[in-house]
Amino acid sequence: MADVTIWTLDWVPEGPRGFVRDLRLRWACEEAGLPYRVRTIAFDDRATNHLDRQPFGQVPYLDDGEVKLFESGAALLHLARKSEMLMPRDAVGEAQTLQWTIAALNSIEMVSVPWWFLNMTKAENKDLTGWLTQRLAHLECIFSEQQFLAADRFTVADLLMADVLRVGALRKFGDRPASEAYVARITARPAFKKAHADQLAQFKAADARRPSAQPSSSAP
Amino acid sequence: MADVTIWTLDWVPEGPRGFVRDLRLRWACEEAGLPYRVRTIAFDDRATNHLDRQPFGQVPYLDDGEVKLFESGAALLHLARKSEMLMPRDAVGEAQTLQWTIAALNSIEMVSVPWWFLNMTKAENKDLTGWLTQRLAHLECIFSEQQFLAADRFTVADLLMADVLRVGALRKFGDRPASEAYVARITARPAFKKAHADQLAQFKAADARRPSAQPSSSAP
Repeated sequence: MADVTIWTLDWVPEGPRGFVRDLRLRWACEEAGLPYRVRTIAFDDRATNHLDRQPFGQVPYLDDGEVKLFESGAALLHLARKSEMLMPRDAVGEAQTLQWTIAALNSIEMVSVPWWFLNMTKAENKDLTGWLTQRLAHLECIFSEQQFLAADRFTVADLLMADVLRVGALRKFGDRPASEAYVARITARPAFKKAHADQLAQFKAADARRPSAQPSSSAP
Repeated sequence: MADVTIWTLDWVPEGPRGFVRDLRLRWACEEAGLPYRVRTIAFDDRATNHLDRQPFGQVPYLDDGEVKLFESGAALLHLARKSEMLMPRDAVGEAQTLQWTIAALNSIEMVSVPWWFLNMTKAENKDLTGWLTQRLAHLECIFSEQQFLAADRFTVADLLMADVLRVGALRKFGDRPASEAYVARITARPAFKKAHADQLAQFKAADARRPSAQPSSSAP
């Protein structure tokens, strides 16, 4: 079996380091023990230099032989079909994993990402904040009662939901001890730590090759 | 094979009729020729009366024997595994369908739904509008070159993307002839028309049983 290839940017500024979504795919491969390599496209002109592969000009995308996939959620579900470690094989466990993977993308991120985006631009909106508060409260109820989202075990749905929730702005917004414990527990997994450290190391190494970049003064 | 059951609300006001997301599942069943029935939960107290089945208090959810699913995107992917009509069975076609299904949920709706939400509350944000404009422009490029999103044929990804894009506010926003033609073409399918008419008829019939409701003066 040929290794899968995860494509990401060759460099990003300090801010998004540790959060670029190639991390989701690195993490999934680490959990599943799937061999993979990481290749990069240029940060400069990133909005247009790979539209033939990713029509919105984003990363990551995945190369797996004849299968070429963009959308990190889709790539995760593709990887999950290669390893039971990421998704159970019984119909009920698989459906639960699928529903919570989609919930992370379309019930949580659909609110949390625009909320973060508006806050970044100092344009908080109280109705959107109210919507987010409600969604996170529902999740807090879930995490108060269960350790994992699906099938009483770690799945790719936890990988994705923890990645969605670990954003600093969300963790500081409100008091949700069960959710915080969940994020801490899921991101304590060795596979996350490896993937996270690898992403930070890649971008840090790229600083040296980037003459115009601001020096990386704060260690990751 | 027992019929699948699509759960939705027993009544909604005029505004969302034709757009409640049970339509996505009705449409998919109609395309695939899968027998289904529709059951309802009470509109009143909808935020809390079915949290045991849908943790965010939303509809639809799907009952398929032992498999019970919320998240319309997840339910669509589940239904797609029951019928090749919704998703090709070759690895490349399946991956393309998966990626565009997730793109509709996490690259388009993640921007378009909050944009719509802010506009509804008269809180337009120019940065979010710029983000949406860019996403829709990328899609317009796609639709200028291809009739369908995945595998050169209709798939569940088209069903979902057309449903995401047919929202009135989005169609009136900007000039994207290829996207408009795409939405018109996909929603001209008999299966959409049947599902749409059935949803409208269900809610209209419910008006009569709802003493406190405003009369349905404008025919759907």
